[in-house]
Amino acid sequence: GGIIGFSCKAFFWNVWEFCKEDVNRVLFSLKVGLSVLLVSLLILFQAPYEAFGTNIIWSILTVAIMFEYTVGATFNRGFNRALGSLLAGILAIAVAQLALCTGRVTEPFIIGTSIFLIGTVTSFMKLWPSLVPYEYGFRVILFTFCLIIVSGYRMGSPIRTAMDRLYSIAIGAFVAVLVNVLVCPIWAGEQLHKELVKSFNVVADSLQECVKKYLEDEGLEHPEFSKTVMDEFSDEPAYKKCRSTLNSSAKLESLASSAKWEPPHGRFRHFFYPWSEYVKVGAVLRYCAYEVMALHGVLHSEIQAPYNLRITFQSEIQEAANQAAELLRVLGKDVNNMKRSLKTSLLKRVHSSTEKLQRAIDMHSYLLTSINSTEPSDNYSKPLPRLSISLSSNTPHDLSSQLTDPESNSLEKTANPPPSGTLSVLARTESYHETMRKQSRRMHSWPPREVAVFEEEGALGSDILPRMNALESTAALSLATFTSLLIEFVARLDHLVEAVEELSNKAKFKQEGF
Amino acid sequence: GGIIGFSCKAFFWNVWEFCKEDVNRVLFSLKVGLSVLLVSLLILFQAPYEAFGTNIIWSILTVAIMFEYTVGATFNRGFNRALGSLLAGILAIAVAQLALCTGRVTEPFIIGTSIFLIGTVTSFMKLWPSLVPYEYGFRVILFTFCLIIVSGYRMGSPIRTAMDRLYSIAIGAFVAVLVNVLVCPIWAGEQLHKELVKSFNVVADSLQECVKKYLEDEGLEHPEFSKTVMDEFSDEPAYKKCRSTLNSSAKLESLASSAKWEPPHGRFRHFFYPWSEYVKVGAVLRYCAYEVMALHGVLHSEIQAPYNLRITFQSEIQEAANQAAELLRVLGKDVNNMKRSLKTSLLKRVHSSTEKLQRAIDMHSYLLTSINSTEPSDNYSKPLPRLSISLSSNTPHDLSSQLTDPESNSLEKTANPPPSGTLSVLARTESYHETMRKQSRRMHSWPPREVAVFEEEGALGSDILPRMNALESTAALSLATFTSLLIEFVARLDHLVEAVEELSNKAKFKQEGF
Repeated sequence: GGIIGFSCKAFFWNVWEFCKEDVNRVLFSLKVGLSVLLVSLLILFQAPYEAFGTNIIWSILTVAIMFEYTVGATFNRGFNRALGSLLAGILAIAVAQLALCTGRVTEPFIIGTSIFLIGTVTSFMKLWPSLVPYEYGFRVILFTFCLIIVSGYRMGSPIRTAMDRLYSIAIGAFVAVLVNVLVCPIWAGEQLHKELVKSFNVVADSLQECVKKYLEDEGLEHPEFSKTVMDEFSDEPAYKKCRSTLNSSAKLESLASSAKWEPPHGRFRHFFYPWSEYVKVGAVLRYCAYEVMALHGVLHSEIQAPYNLRITFQSEIQEAANQAAELLRVLGKDVNNMKRSLKTSLLKRVHSSTEKLQRAIDMHSYLLTSINSTEPSDNYSKPLPRLSISLSSNTPHDLSSQLTDPESNSLEKTANPPPSGTLSVLARTESYHETMRKQSRRMHSWPPREVAVFEEEGALGSDILPRMNALESTAALSLATFTSLLIEFVARLDHLVEAVEELSNKAKFKQEGF
Repeated sequence: GGIIGFSCKAFFWNVWEFCKEDVNRVLFSLKVGLSVLLVSLLILFQAPYEAFGTNIIWSILTVAIMFEYTVGATFNRGFNRALGSLLAGILAIAVAQLALCTGRVTEPFIIGTSIFLIGTVTSFMKLWPSLVPYEYGFRVILFTFCLIIVSGYRMGSPIRTAMDRLYSIAIGAFVAVLVNVLVCPIWAGEQLHKELVKSFNVVADSLQECVKKYLEDEGLEHPEFSKTVMDEFSDEPAYKKCRSTLNSSAKLESLASSAKWEPPHGRFRHFFYPWSEYVKVGAVLRYCAYEVMALHGVLHSEIQAPYNLRITFQSEIQEAANQAAELLRVLGKDVNNMKRSLKTSLLKRVHSSTEKLQRAIDMHSYLLTSINSTEPSDNYSKPLPRLSISLSSNTPHDLSSQLTDPESNSLEKTANPPPSGTLSVLARTESYHETMRKQSRRMHSWPPREVAVFEEEGALGSDILPRMNALESTAALSLATFTSLLIEFVARLDHLVEAVEELSNKAKFKQEGF
């Protein structure tokens, strides 16, 4: 009893949470109940029943089939049903008259043939790509045609049957539309608007989450990850949301096609509101999300840049990612408020932070290729201090001194360690090499069938150092990949800003900030 | 007349092409025609009409609503319809009996309340995430309940109405299932199988296409591209297909959920065939496709490695991509033939070619960071000839000589050009710098609001060379990004091989090749 009571409680708790998450769900359910009740009243009360007769059950069928979640989808379905019924009625009457004229014997053959033909043609047409959205309409044509022509044949007067049926379908459609529009309407346009704004924030969140993880040391020590690409990444909630954004294209498209059926409402006050622009912005945003997926791939790839290399560029990477995420959020906020603000200064900041990152990588690119990436600076775990100074002062002399610096760090020096190296630096170098050895072990285990070959070669003895170099350099290049992808992400933001600009123009968003 | 005749011809040509593309489309249409005809015969002929009465029109409705493209989807819909009708019938009879007991006055109130409640509850339940696939079943419950209870109220004997209705629905369902299964059945499982195999080939094709484009010189001279991310890329047919693969998850899932309803058939001879594994393999394959998308992003990004740098690693990149594509195709072929072949040697080849690429990049990583990436070799446009030799001979001595080589190419040498440089080399160097200048111009135009800043700095005069270095190095790092992504793609292939292995086990594919 206790267990049942508990699970019952849990069940009601779940239902409650589900309702609280989106009150529209409850509203929708109540609206369906209300509209079927309204139609049923036409039969339950004596007066309307005498007027309409039993044909009114077709109204109930219509309500049950036509009532959709959003206003636009209901209109769309109603249109399909109305046009389908109308076409089917006209066709049925024409065929029935033809059959009547040819006489009693051939009548069933003509009717049978026509049913076969209508069944075949409508089924074929609904497979045609541009007609797929009207799939429901073709179904309606098929069954309405069959019903009218068959009951006409058996009960006589096909025109009368057709008219009665159309009549009651119209009543059902009228009730469904009325309740859907007048009682707390749920607009597809509003839903689409919210959905798009949400995606902006999701992409921004997952970008920041991914970069944060990349700059955390322990974040990359997930050896079990390699077992499964399809992991749930329970510690990365934003990533999961971003992944679902990638599959949201169908949802956005169906909302947009529903929204087109809706009259101006709420905040969307003018006719021919550009709903299709929302889909376009969503597509460009998805292109940005692909880059986040690629960044996530680098984050979880098995060959990794060592932590101390990653941390060297920490502030630049962080800055670029934060600026990009902020731009995304501002774009989302602008769309949400239907405002148009000047993004010039923001864009400038995004680009200059990306620029900084790029220059930092360029100037320290020797770190990505030489073995001994530990500069003999005093504090290793901090990002190289001179870097940020040179970037902020921006004097050409600093830049060139920076660029001639790599000379002191070339491969040659590995054999003769730099005289300026102190004990602590050597210790750090050792731990760095320790990391590299771990990396290389991990890498050896990566192409499983290659291990034998490696070890064979290893037996030759003398090439261990060169291989280590190779591995270290590959590992370091993974940092270059990460930053390149980040820069590419920012480049795509330009397209996103353009797309939002286009949307703002077509949707006549209010200008702000002058 | 001529124009109409021509467009008519074009129309029929299109229809003909559409049919030829997939004959199942025509078959499906004819099958629908056949089954509505069969049901209509029950009314058109005198004998069955006398036996069944006008209720038989419900069979027509059932056929029109239930007949789906694949066998599995028809079963699924039939199950929804049958269970929904049954539940609705039981509920309706119970409520009607209750209403009858309470007397004539309260009867309409009880019926009205029950209709409202059923409408509300079914609509709410179909929004619940785990019940969404049964959406159609809830619709059936709603309208069947209303129809039975309302007509029972007006015409008496709800049990009789319910039974008649269920009876004719059963006939319709029976005809629909019979025609669907016996006349050239279209199996969802078969479709899913084909769809998955096709995706393997699409990903392989688009990988090769992307790599081919990357190694072509003119392929990267599309300045107009930067205008729109959403370009159609008409010269990249495989990319378009790959992009549609990314959105195929919904299709695969719906096919898999339909396939679960199908009995063993054709090549899928055992019960509980693991259709859900197909969805999993599809998901891993999609993860590979994300990498192809990222590669495509690098291909069309605005900062590009110069052609002569790309061409240096041509054979390695090509080799790695070809091997990876071949592995994909073999996997697809194995799934297609439901065989299980040893992929060890193939995997080995894929890994060793990736390994080669990685080593080539590592050993020549100085090319990615130094300015003068033109080695003073005799033929510039060929990939560095010693590279492939050292890789095939694989002697440690070669490797280390390769690795000490970079010394001769360090930044220092830019100031004092190598004495071995001939006139032709200088000319090539010039054209290389010409390319770089173009690159840098392109890059200047990239963050549009940054140009002013750049030019201001340019006025200082002395930092032009360092900036060029920076740009060249970033451009060169884009090659590193490309190869990293390619290597990551290969790493994901391991997961794909695992997923296919899992599928082969669960689906009991035949072992081959012993």
